[in-house]
Amino acid sequence: MTKSITRLVPILSWGREYNRSALSNDLVAAVIVTIMLIPQSLAYALLAGLPAEAGLYASIAPIILYTVFGTSRALAVGPVAVVSLMTAAALSNIVEQGTMGYAVAALSLAGLSGAMLLAMGIFRLGFVANFLSHPVIAGFITASGLIIAASQLKHILGIEAQGHNLLELVISLAEHLPETNWITAVIGILATGFLFWVRKGLKPLLQRLGLGAGLTGVLVKTGPVAVVVVTTFAVWGLGLADKGVKIVGEVPQSLPPLTLPSFSPKLLGQLLLPAFLISIIGFVESISVAQTLAAKKGQRIDPDQELIGLGAANIGASLTGGFPVTGGFSRSVVNFDAGAETPAAGAFTAIGLAIAAMALTPLIFFLPKATLAATIIVAVLSLVDFSILGRSLNYSKADFAAVLTTIIVTLAMGVEAGVSAGVVLSILLQLYKSSKPHIAEVGQVPGTEHFRNILRHKVITDPRIVSLRVDESLYFANARFLEDKIQNRVAKDKQIRHVILQCSAINEIDLSALESLETINERLREMDVQLHLSEVKGPVMDKLKEQHFLREMTGNVYLSQFEAVDQVRKLLAA
Amino acid sequence: MTKSITRLVPILSWGREYNRSALSNDLVAAVIVTIMLIPQSLAYALLAGLPAEAGLYASIAPIILYTVFGTSRALAVGPVAVVSLMTAAALSNIVEQGTMGYAVAALSLAGLSGAMLLAMGIFRLGFVANFLSHPVIAGFITASGLIIAASQLKHILGIEAQGHNLLELVISLAEHLPETNWITAVIGILATGFLFWVRKGLKPLLQRLGLGAGLTGVLVKTGPVAVVVVTTFAVWGLGLADKGVKIVGEVPQSLPPLTLPSFSPKLLGQLLLPAFLISIIGFVESISVAQTLAAKKGQRIDPDQELIGLGAANIGASLTGGFPVTGGFSRSVVNFDAGAETPAAGAFTAIGLAIAAMALTPLIFFLPKATLAATIIVAVLSLVDFSILGRSLNYSKADFAAVLTTIIVTLAMGVEAGVSAGVVLSILLQLYKSSKPHIAEVGQVPGTEHFRNILRHKVITDPRIVSLRVDESLYFANARFLEDKIQNRVAKDKQIRHVILQCSAINEIDLSALESLETINERLREMDVQLHLSEVKGPVMDKLKEQHFLREMTGNVYLSQFEAVDQVRKLLAA
Repeated sequence: MTKSITRLVPILSWGREYNRSALSNDLVAAVIVTIMLIPQSLAYALLAGLPAEAGLYASIAPIILYTVFGTSRALAVGPVAVVSLMTAAALSNIVEQGTMGYAVAALSLAGLSGAMLLAMGIFRLGFVANFLSHPVIAGFITASGLIIAASQLKHILGIEAQGHNLLELVISLAEHLPETNWITAVIGILATGFLFWVRKGLKPLLQRLGLGAGLTGVLVKTGPVAVVVVTTFAVWGLGLADKGVKIVGEVPQSLPPLTLPSFSPKLLGQLLLPAFLISIIGFVESISVAQTLAAKKGQRIDPDQELIGLGAANIGASLTGGFPVTGGFSRSVVNFDAGAETPAAGAFTAIGLAIAAMALTPLIFFLPKATLAATIIVAVLSLVDFSILGRSLNYSKADFAAVLTTIIVTLAMGVEAGVSAGVVLSILLQLYKSSKPHIAEVGQVPGTEHFRNILRHKVITDPRIVSLRVDESLYFANARFLEDKIQNRVAKDKQIRHVILQCSAINEIDLSALESLETINERLREMDVQLHLSEVKGPVMDKLKEQHFLREMTGNVYLSQFEAVDQVRKLLAA
Repeated sequence: MTKSITRLVPILSWGREYNRSALSNDLVAAVIVTIMLIPQSLAYALLAGLPAEAGLYASIAPIILYTVFGTSRALAVGPVAVVSLMTAAALSNIVEQGTMGYAVAALSLAGLSGAMLLAMGIFRLGFVANFLSHPVIAGFITASGLIIAASQLKHILGIEAQGHNLLELVISLAEHLPETNWITAVIGILATGFLFWVRKGLKPLLQRLGLGAGLTGVLVKTGPVAVVVVTTFAVWGLGLADKGVKIVGEVPQSLPPLTLPSFSPKLLGQLLLPAFLISIIGFVESISVAQTLAAKKGQRIDPDQELIGLGAANIGASLTGGFPVTGGFSRSVVNFDAGAETPAAGAFTAIGLAIAAMALTPLIFFLPKATLAATIIVAVLSLVDFSILGRSLNYSKADFAAVLTTIIVTLAMGVEAGVSAGVVLSILLQLYKSSKPHIAEVGQVPGTEHFRNILRHKVITDPRIVSLRVDESLYFANARFLEDKIQNRVAKDKQIRHVILQCSAINEIDLSALESLETINERLREMDVQLHLSEVKGPVMDKLKEQHFLREMTGNVYLSQFEAVDQVRKLLAA
């Protein structure tokens, strides 16, 4: 009982051992992460189509709830780029951006996603996320990064542009290009250039100066803070807001508000699929970050418990003016590198952000939106990586097809269509592959008891005996394939008197396959050919034993293929 | 060239060897099948919601076209019960029965289904049908049989009733029960009773009298002809048509008309899914009959060519006033038992039916619909078999779930929903199973080189070495499962220095799984644990060799698990 409560509420286990050293490490990490999170949170709110303060709100309650229910000690939960883009894409089809309804829909999306994550955690359905293959994720992230970057160009140029796929965005940007606000463009381009330099130029510089990798990483991540400060002062001092530079403007000075998501069945119905996709994508992103960081310290992550932690975080976001959140890569790495020891670091970060939300918001009145767009662009372009195309092409056609489809559909039709197409195609290709399993005709390697493929090796065979090795579990999708294969092999060669199936690679036989074996046995009997099995695995044999197939079978089951051929030869000689 | 033409047009191969003995055998079979087919064809047209003559038309051109393009020597193509029911279900949602539009929609459904079958044959996509598992088919046929029988009760009772699932039908029948026409009911019940007796009583009787199984089968199958003749005479002689007994009425005396399916995109769009389901169900029914009969004579069936044969047959049906057809079980068995040697028997049957369509239709003017309903009921109730429920329950939960779902959804929501639900569920369950593969921790069986599950056997292990055997190919759906499993196993036991994956049951490693192995290797390195592989299969090794994973791997690849443990022990001792 106590143990299961500790499992469900991990804070009870690490909370007991908490001490002064961990406290000071956690506090230092929290300060660093808080500074880094402020511009990032504002920027992702903008990307999601929400007012800037929503980004701060979405980082406070979720962090605390994850601290209580999550298993990772370093994961930092909050708005992340891809999920924010998916939020914007989902909501734009339903309500108009900037309206009250939009904010409520964002809360509802977070609430629905939270409920789904929670349910998946409780019912241990985390395996669903496994159907998102690595190539599909890689393609999706790359394509999303491009869309996000394109969607931010309007802020850099100070123009209007709309669209939720690359095509729409590019066309819209081209149409509005003549309306470019040049002052905005200068700020945006300088900010972007500076942030790129921080990554590409400053980082090597600091490393040459002898700073540790952890500290360098942290300093580089605070680059956006410098840009925020400088550009805000510039806009304020030079009065650029009056010259058409779009600024964040008035942000309420308050703790996160208490909010309620909508329970309208129509709205929830429309949000169902996006919420599911956001849950899955967010979970996959989060768990892989968590596992990577945990491995560095030899800690364990419980995927089902992570679902509960993320679910609680999203429900928290929906009740406090936020939008869908998940464990982010960059913020978690900063947290880890800054020395966070326990989830308490997250709680301290939440307190820091709460203070920011209450006290610092007047300071960002003059923050230009172009600066936030620049931080987003630089962050997401590091996600864009087309090398997966070459890598998958070099490895397997099926993987390549899945990546390419995901990238093209995401770019051309948007995030939901892209990830769905990738998942469906990779499942179909997998089913296709397993429906045409590799079936090798085998013969005895001279002087050994081994049997190998007759096409690859010089082996001994007997014209009256056909030995086939099926390199796949037998189930409905390939059962009939085996039927056809055997019947065609036997029908074209009248000498054959015995067929031996070597079952060493068969991990399961389902009912369809069992019935196919019965059919094969029956058809072979009609052709006066005996069917034998060899090397049947224990669990498979356990199941077969109870079935009348074994009694009906014209031949026998042998422990090894060698024994099978040996005994059958004796039968033929007799 | 010649060979590929012969493959595409099988008639060129058997046609050349045709001789007098085959001719006389084929002629005899054709006469028997023709007599049996007349009432059956009329009845299935009625079931499909079409005028009786459509059943004859649907048996003529399709048989001839299948003769030219099909590979089975005994298969008889024409209307069959389940496909006729599916036709009625598909069309009833779109057009009203009895209208001209209904007949055109039936032609279009046949044409669309024919085009799909043809395309699947040309592009060798026959494997798609394999996703219809045996339990799903068994459940579907049983449920369809019940629906068909229920749908015919209205003809037996002489009332109106409608519905495309069991629930609707039963409610509708109950509502209209008071309107029962008692004369019709007497004819219907007597006809049904007689036909049941022919199957259950006459068959054993004839066998006791010493008739061969083949001849008995043929005589029993002609039972419906006797009922047709007797009840037609009764209705005519007693003037029962004036007393409310519904009769077939005037049937045009003609060869099949030349017709054109509709090319309306809207109609074809609505028919797309039903046409696909009808194609798949029809193909599966047909190919299993063809394979069973071919096995009896050691002949070969080419599934892709069968698709072409059935595709041509359905296009033929759509151009000659028919509706969707396929290779039927009972007619093919009669054809086979009656001694048909080549597809020419089918062509002669077609001629017989053409003569019937031209000359005999006036004779069936007074044929009561109740008689046709009786022949349908008796035929389909032999398909109803709930034993698959017990059998699957006894074998595996997944198979049982698939059968039960198929039966319940078909009965409650109709044929299309039922078969779709069954297929989707069985695919999902299969994916679920392979996403949580059996992973055994293995140890050495004392005194041998064998490694077995530590939970099942007394084996030797080393606290510093973990050997894991994965009983499934590694692909995206189970890659992360393996990651979690290994990380959790290693994180909870700090003694572990080596992990060995025994890969004997791994038939494939896709890109996701390869990346998972890289991740596992990286995480184990962080925990100062080495990763080794053993017993990697040839084709898997071929692919891995080209990847940098093998160079990055902290450990080695060993030929056998025994060698792996032996070498790792030496490493530890050094």
